[in-house]
Amino acid sequence: MMIVMKETASEDEIAAVVTKVERAGARAHQSKGARVTVIGAIGDVEQDAAVSSLGLEGQPGVDLVVPILKPYKLASSQIRHGERTVLEIEGQKIGGGHFALMAGPCTVESRDQVISTAEVVKEGGAAMLRGGAYKPRTSPYAFQGLGLEGLRLLAEAKERTGLPVVTELMDARDLEPVLEVADVIQVGARNMQNFPLLAEIGRSGRPVLLKRGLSATLEELLMAAEYVLKEGNPNVMLCERGIRTFESSYRTTLDLQAVPVLKELSHLPVVVDPSHSAGRRSLVAPMSLAAAAAGADGIIVEVHPNPDEALCDGPQALLADDFAAYADAVHRAAQLAGQALSSAV
Amino acid sequence: MMIVMKETASEDEIAAVVTKVERAGARAHQSKGARVTVIGAIGDVEQDAAVSSLGLEGQPGVDLVVPILKPYKLASSQIRHGERTVLEIEGQKIGGGHFALMAGPCTVESRDQVISTAEVVKEGGAAMLRGGAYKPRTSPYAFQGLGLEGLRLLAEAKERTGLPVVTELMDARDLEPVLEVADVIQVGARNMQNFPLLAEIGRSGRPVLLKRGLSATLEELLMAAEYVLKEGNPNVMLCERGIRTFESSYRTTLDLQAVPVLKELSHLPVVVDPSHSAGRRSLVAPMSLAAAAAGADGIIVEVHPNPDEALCDGPQALLADDFAAYADAVHRAAQLAGQALSSAV
Amino acid sequence: MMIVMKETASEDEIAAVVTKVERAGARAHQSKGARVTVIGAIGDVEQDAAVSSLGLEGQPGVDLVVPILKPYKLASSQIRHGERTVLEIEGQKIGGGHFALMAGPCTVESRDQVISTAEVVKEGGAAMLRGGAYKPRTSPYAFQGLGLEGLRLLAEAKERTGLPVVTELMDARDLEPVLEVADVIQVGARNMQNFPLLAEIGRSGRPVLLKRGLSATLEELLMAAEYVLKEGNPNVMLCERGIRTFESSYRTTLDLQAVPVLKELSHLPVVVDPSHSAGRRSLVAPMSLAAAAAGADGIIVEVHPNPDEALCDGPQALLADDFAAYADAVHRAAQLAGQALSSAV
Amino acid sequence: MMIVMKETASEDEIAAVVTKVERAGARAHQSKGARVTVIGAIGDVEQDAAVSSLGLEGQPGVDLVVPILKPYKLASSQIRHGERTVLEIEGQKIGGGHFALMAGPCTVESRDQVISTAEVVKEGGAAMLRGGAYKPRTSPYAFQGLGLEGLRLLAEAKERTGLPVVTELMDARDLEPVLEVADVIQVGARNMQNFPLLAEIGRSGRPVLLKRGLSATLEELLMAAEYVLKEGNPNVMLCERGIRTFESSYRTTLDLQAVPVLKELSHLPVVVDPSHSAGRRSLVAPMSLAAAAAGADGIIVEVHPNPDEALCDGPQALLADDFAAYADAVHRAAQLAGQALSSAV
Repeated sequence: MMIVMKETASEDEIAAVVTKVERAGARAHQSKGARVTVIGAIGDVEQDAAVSSLGLEGQPGVDLVVPILKPYKLASSQIRHGERTVLEIEGQKIGGGHFALMAGPCTVESRDQVISTAEVVKEGGAAMLRGGAYKPRTSPYAFQGLGLEGLRLLAEAKERTGLPVVTELMDARDLEPVLEVADVIQVGARNMQNFPLLAEIGRSGRPVLLKRGLSATLEELLMAAEYVLKEGNPNVMLCERGIRTFESSYRTTLDLQAVPVLKELSHLPVVVDPSHSAGRRSLVAPMSLAAAAAGADGIIVEVHPNPDEALCDGPQALLADDFAAYADAVHRAAQLAGQALSSAV
Repeated sequence: MMIVMKETASEDEIAAVVTKVERAGARAHQSKGARVTVIGAIGDVEQDAAVSSLGLEGQPGVDLVVPILKPYKLASSQIRHGERTVLEIEGQKIGGGHFALMAGPCTVESRDQVISTAEVVKEGGAAMLRGGAYKPRTSPYAFQGLGLEGLRLLAEAKERTGLPVVTELMDARDLEPVLEVADVIQVGARNMQNFPLLAEIGRSGRPVLLKRGLSATLEELLMAAEYVLKEGNPNVMLCERGIRTFESSYRTTLDLQAVPVLKELSHLPVVVDPSHSAGRRSLVAPMSLAAAAAGADGIIVEVHPNPDEALCDGPQALLADDFAAYADAVHRAAQLAGQALSSAV
Repeated sequence: MMIVMKETASEDEIAAVVTKVERAGARAHQSKGARVTVIGAIGDVEQDAAVSSLGLEGQPGVDLVVPILKPYKLASSQIRHGERTVLEIEGQKIGGGHFALMAGPCTVESRDQVISTAEVVKEGGAAMLRGGAYKPRTSPYAFQGLGLEGLRLLAEAKERTGLPVVTELMDARDLEPVLEVADVIQVGARNMQNFPLLAEIGRSGRPVLLKRGLSATLEELLMAAEYVLKEGNPNVMLCERGIRTFESSYRTTLDLQAVPVLKELSHLPVVVDPSHSAGRRSLVAPMSLAAAAAGADGIIVEVHPNPDEALCDGPQALLADDFAAYADAVHRAAQLAGQALSSAV
Repeated sequence: MMIVMKETASEDEIAAVVTKVERAGARAHQSKGARVTVIGAIGDVEQDAAVSSLGLEGQPGVDLVVPILKPYKLASSQIRHGERTVLEIEGQKIGGGHFALMAGPCTVESRDQVISTAEVVKEGGAAMLRGGAYKPRTSPYAFQGLGLEGLRLLAEAKERTGLPVVTELMDARDLEPVLEVADVIQVGARNMQNFPLLAEIGRSGRPVLLKRGLSATLEELLMAAEYVLKEGNPNVMLCERGIRTFESSYRTTLDLQAVPVLKELSHLPVVVDPSHSAGRRSLVAPMSLAAAAAGADGIIVEVHPNPDEALCDGPQALLADDFAAYADAVHRAAQLAGQALSSAV
């Protein structure tokens, strides 16, 4: 942490900062320039967190507080000396040069729907099956998912196809039944900073797909991953799914620069969800190609056998009939970016 | 819900929308203009939620989906026919013309700190005591609050001063001990869309201070309130605490237009938190005056007997010695906006 | 400028930064910490601008570039040693403890409209008359203002009431006729970074009301002011008029924290425009009180004798009949913030 | 335009809206539902602009104003019945299935620099040469470009290589010398809503590359294009170059969803500028591949023979030595998206 004092800062104000830094357990190193004084707060990640908690940006005489070291350590590129994490999930690899397509319905609605979709996406070249049994909904009046029955149907689809299952957990109290089915636990954007939930999943050891919050910075996403990693669970994938901006022509703005930047900052695999970002089918294919060409390690996409009858988000689902051609184009874009392809076929 | 079709929409595309609307349980009313067709989806709030879940914005041939009725009903102004909710918390009124100042430390750190602060804010004219025992922290390496010990100290401060206590709940599994102390349960910005937590608090019946998420729209804030209200708990206060924008000169951007607009949309009291938005003491007084002048029903503010020794966010805390003068100025601004003052003195 | 290198930066990467800094005319001072090297680039404001132009944030091995000194100098608080600029415009003071209300129609539409509005706002206690003859419009099909005829009507209103006139300039080629009428030249939000226009106005010496762009940072606003100041024109007022965010319940988000922060960073007067930010009459009074209570040096507000017949933005205009009561309330809020009142009555 | 009234709107409020709509020249069509009244304002694009100018969103009793028809007509897909604009610039095609790479230095610095870069990018397969003689700079203390001398050097580079030239115009008073050199006039992001400048360029008839403002919506970008088109100049390219968001890990957020969406809304070619969005070389290649894979009609990218000596933005410039391999990869991504390649070789 580097604390830049204002030109007008008094000696007392400088001394007060030094005292606070030292009380938080870090060493304070003063550097007096011609016009301003800069104080370096030197410590490990815990001491940095303590200095950061002080809120020194608001301290009298302070102009800027600049983090020098990253506030995450387990998620950082450095800790692995440049080696990338490769997750292997029921034989499907993702990360470190391996590209995996995860596909399936937004929400599990019925046995037929989930089984037929699972078969289609397996045939088409997907590496995993996605599907939601618990759905976070803005409105308390909206369909909240099939719950336990949805989990049971996912288990059956997995048994039939061999595809590993990605499904969302919203409430730590539902962890046990979700663990019985999920090969990857999805944490939704709204729960990205649900710290007790992250810690529980961390303790479970199960692979996690962690979605970036709608207005979360990349650093906050990596700090959320750190909550999982710190509990001893190294199996985290990061997922960009669109951020909130002033633009109102589409549901959210897909931030694909996040892909190469997260891969610079962290060793964890980076996945993109073009379905939720765009909110409409016509954008899903171009943005999927773009994500793969940008170097994403995976794509998680919605597919429905009959989107016109979907209870939720049908218009953003790919048609099951189009999936094989879509997957083929996405795979070629991933190869253009130098990736090897994972597939359950 | 009104669905505006594109000029180029085909008859089949129009028919597909009508079918989806009707399958969701609403009636579809077509209106064909010279250039575009508009489909009205008519139903109650549950049917509206079902239509909304369809994601019709992405449906082929659809140009726009415009909600006509508000997606919340219990939180809306109309349901109370213009009458405003007045909460009465241990004798302190807030809302409907009553202004209440809630003050205290960011985090409970020690017996001395919380008791002395409670006494100062009571003397100065605060109506309630705020203080955190559980703290959501971006970093897993940062101080997470005193937990149960913090709750015990708050109970003691309440006993000594008679001030009702506002404190945060992060995890539904901690509800029981929090209910023993909290007169108002605070839901932090990061948990605004933690729907299982909101529902639990709703079932508890305890008054809630619900903070707006850093990138939540006012409609999403009201939908979060609806999750609490729907469980039969009418005691909800809404709290503006700053939103995330491109501006980097301060921690967040305090959105004071939210105050009059929330009061138009809803009957619930509206509170402002200038401490977290600004992140520095020098902005707290001007923004508090501004919030009160804009018509806020309450202000929740941080005070510390010795901010230089605070473990968390000291630089944004008002000095205990300055509190009485601050409270006096804020009260005059609230009176300028036509409010009656609540106070525990 | 301080350049923080990555932990993994090589000696060559460090040397390349040093070379670039020195080639731009600044001195480079290296400080090697346990884990990272920090390079200070030391120079005056021109050399800082040259270093800043290098785009070092993208240079290999560079983690962060942190400006230490402000990139503006003439606009900064320091240059005046804490003394604040007071503009005196035809006898009306603004800044440095003086509060001025500027009021009038959005657009000059007719002789009757502008004269009657001028009389009403003068009676009510306004210090200046606002009104647009040239209007920047998002659509080329919309009414673009009366142009020269509008300027002539403003001149007549000034002659009748003695109120100084604030009016907008959009095109440097219209400077001459605008100078014949305008006591204050308004630069609209869309032109905040129209640098040739700013420089021309700077050379004219005429007082300027400079509106913040819809997504301009405070630093960019101050840099735009610097373009005017640099040409020898010290008469600049800064104006907050709402910024663009994700919130869609109102036209823009009024950023009132900008008021105290701009007053900390700069000696220039700070004005707020609540009419354009809110876009509707019901929000104008509460946000005006809030702006005045936050310490604004002035408010610029729209008033119309018959808003239902306004060609432009009628619903955000105050009713002429309500103006005196409005002005009285705003003046009381300004006094609460310690301001003396300017008025033409 | 459709005006949705509040549930609580009175008959008088409804009548006032009808009167305003009719006074603006449009027809008002009332539709009374069970709970709310909706008023359709029916007219052509000029009458729509007049209704839009009224600011009805703020009118008492009005809940929402929803545009039904697009406010642009010449830029819209419909006017060309789905046929796409293909610009042909000195033999290089762009749009309607033709992909063109424009490359060159950010700023013209010297004869050697611009000539050698032009030769490299021609060899590598670029279709046009970019380079700035007039540079809009946030700081008045920064290098503002070589001006006329820069234009002269671009003319020489064009003569040597045959590459058409793209260069920026900032001030309508510089139009004449720019027209002598520019095959394409670039309008920078800060001037996207400089309406007098757009109209002048429109009258010149010269092809335009119009960059999206940092916080401009796609609709605003298309309205800016409409200012050019309305003057009889059909030769407009739209350019996405990053938008401003809360994310601070990179200079701006590249909004690639804009590519397919602009191609749905408009017949105009869509270009992407990854250099300015990213601000660093390591992101330029992945984002260029992503842009091409998303269906962009062109990419405009910065190349420098020796970026370490660049006066401006060197770290985002591709190395001249790497250009051919870069262009080859980008071309393959464009082919994946179904584009034919333009090239000057």
